Amino acid sequence: MVQGPNVRRTAVTLSDGRQLIYFDEVGGGQLHDRTLAVDQRPLTPSGSRSEMRRDVFHDEWITVAGHRQSRTHLPPAELCPICPSRPGHDTEIPASDYDVVVFENRFPSFASSPDERGPFGSGPFLHAPGVGRCEVIAFTSDHSAAFSSLSPRRVRTVIETWANRTAELSGCDDVEQVFCFENRGEEIGVTLSHPHGQVYGYPYVTPRTAQALRSAAAYEESVGRNLYADVLAAEQESGERVIVSGDHWTAFVPFAARWPMEVHLYLHRQVPDLPALQEAEREELAEVYLDVLRRMESIYDNTLPYIAGWHQAPVREFREHAYLHLEVFSLRRAPGRLKHLAGSESAMGAFVNDVSPEEMAQALRKA
Amino acid sequence: MVQGPNVRRTAVTLSDGRQLIYFDEVGGGQLHDRTLAVDQRPLTPSGSRSEMRRDVFHDEWITVAGHRQSRTHLPPAELCPICPSRPGHDTEIPASDYDVVVFENRFPSFASSPDERGPFGSGPFLHAPGVGRCEVIAFTSDHSAAFSSLSPRRVRTVIETWANRTAELSGCDDVEQVFCFENRGEEIGVTLSHPHGQVYGYPYVTPRTAQALRSAAAYEESVGRNLYADVLAAEQESGERVIVSGDHWTAFVPFAARWPMEVHLYLHRQVPDLPALQEAEREELAEVYLDVLRRMESIYDNTLPYIAGWHQAPVREFREHAYLHLEVFSLRRAPGRLKHLAGSESAMGAFVNDVSPEEMAQALRKA
Repeated sequence: MVQGPNVRRTAVTLSDGRQLIYFDEVGGGQLHDRTLAVDQRPLTPSGSRSEMRRDVFHDEWITVAGHRQSRTHLPPAELCPICPSRPGHDTEIPASDYDVVVFENRFPSFASSPDERGPFGSGPFLHAPGVGRCEVIAFTSDHSAAFSSLSPRRVRTVIETWANRTAELSGCDDVEQVFCFENRGEEIGVTLSHPHGQVYGYPYVTPRTAQALRSAAAYEESVGRNLYADVLAAEQESGERVIVSGDHWTAFVPFAARWPMEVHLYLHRQVPDLPALQEAEREELAEVYLDVLRRMESIYDNTLPYIAGWHQAPVREFREHAYLHLEVFSLRRAPGRLKHLAGSESAMGAFVNDVSPEEMAQALRKA
Repeated sequence: MVQGPNVRRTAVTLSDGRQLIYFDEVGGGQLHDRTLAVDQRPLTPSGSRSEMRRDVFHDEWITVAGHRQSRTHLPPAELCPICPSRPGHDTEIPASDYDVVVFENRFPSFASSPDERGPFGSGPFLHAPGVGRCEVIAFTSDHSAAFSSLSPRRVRTVIETWANRTAELSGCDDVEQVFCFENRGEEIGVTLSHPHGQVYGYPYVTPRTAQALRSAAAYEESVGRNLYADVLAAEQESGERVIVSGDHWTAFVPFAARWPMEVHLYLHRQVPDLPALQEAEREELAEVYLDVLRRMESIYDNTLPYIAGWHQAPVREFREHAYLHLEVFSLRRAPGRLKHLAGSESAMGAFVNDVSPEEMAQALRKA
């Protein structure tokens, strides 16, 4: 089990059979026995099943998950399903308080394993069961907090949690890639405002990862070096788009940024995934990531819709070419204005960015 | 010049040098001499320049167009720049009325040709001037209309206009692909509510087109038939996702739909682009496209944010594998709710659709 020395992990089962795991911070006082708080709700297993369908033009799996239409949508704070349970309001978390908690999504894009994986069908109509795993991570029991307002100690606990989930889901037969991410802000469709992230265990290598790693493989074949390492070295040498740099991590706006605000955070050495991070790297990550998020949020009005995602090596394929890094981006292009993906981006995949990466990097350095 | 027998085309020049073209419907009465209405505004050339940057991980060009930040954003109706000019309010269109009009965008993603095309730079930092062409098509002078409220005659004129622009831009040295599209609805970032579409002349083959046509080329190599033609035949044979079918066109929800509401409209024979359409095919297209749009808009509350785009053969590459078709999709997944592209789609390219394609096809057939 991957976990730091200062985190205690306790797994329990919700009333419909889903798994819930507490990650408690050790050292601040007496710890609760997490097995004592029992889910009082009479939930029946949702039996959610999703289906993957092959897009023969783009060689991609598209997942159809009709049951997600009924998922909880922006409930008022007093009905938040991610807050701790209290008398008269039983939530997804049976305990009355928590540090960080992970649970299986009741409305998952990918559900657990069936007997046969497929693909089934013929001609252009290939389909397969949507196997895999979708988890929710609550970063804090404080409903009104944000990731950027967490303490470095708490971010350190979240890093342990991400590493633990990556290691554990990587061990599932159905999972080919583990993606830890946070969607933040109603503007990008977040349906629950309580600070939380997600972990997807995909049953395939995702299209953008596969494409990037094919490029990295071709580059290594031709040049003999890792593409990500060379990009990091070039950004460090130029310095024009670097925002912050520590002993182990460097954050920069990429040269070919797709989004008006986009920051990539690279480790200074090539590792495949979060479990491979050493202690000092995890410690500095907590500080540097908070610094980056707070700079990004300060650019407009101290709120920012953003998507933050860890790019990790797939579980089986391409591992030797992958290079762990974080990509954070926002669709906000000006106060009150978003960069929407319209015809050029959505239909043709041709991105037009209205903001100069160098100007954004300068603003983020000064922030 | 590609144009139907019932449309008169007149090109004029705006005060900053941009081209504007009237497409007037012949037969309804006396036509104005379009050269008499002169742009009275003292506009200076915007000198807009954009830059393309190479994303080395995804082998794509990303366009940086900083000048677009200052583009007109949701002006009140009385300040609409696409309405005809009237005393005291000079707009982009000098005339006091028009049928269909095309003009070069003053805030283009791609601007006209420089002396050298590049690419320039080295290592991971390759860039090139953002050459190409961006045009706006106003579908009607009626500010409060919608494409779906146009008459079949007017849609027929729009089809002539698309075919004309495709043929003309395909003749530009800088243009590798012509994309005629409509973004509709504030929810997807449309900044002007007057009914209008756009034409992009890209200086490269766009990523999604290149990917689809590589798949089509591989399929033809292996099976000896066109991939699009086989998909159409399979959809027609199944019938499960077909919405409407005429003598020349069939509309269906694709088997692997990415979006909650998505309709593809295929011609019954393989042609590369809109200029190749025969007269009867253009006539039926006007009727079928209006039928499809009206069905889509009726599903929720008679308004629908949507993106409609023509997939045409690139100008030089892959032409023999391409198959002209239209793709229309909406991000609306329920009344008042949108499908946002969040972490899975935006960061990983892994689409999860909350709506069953078969159920949506059934609803659209009944509409």
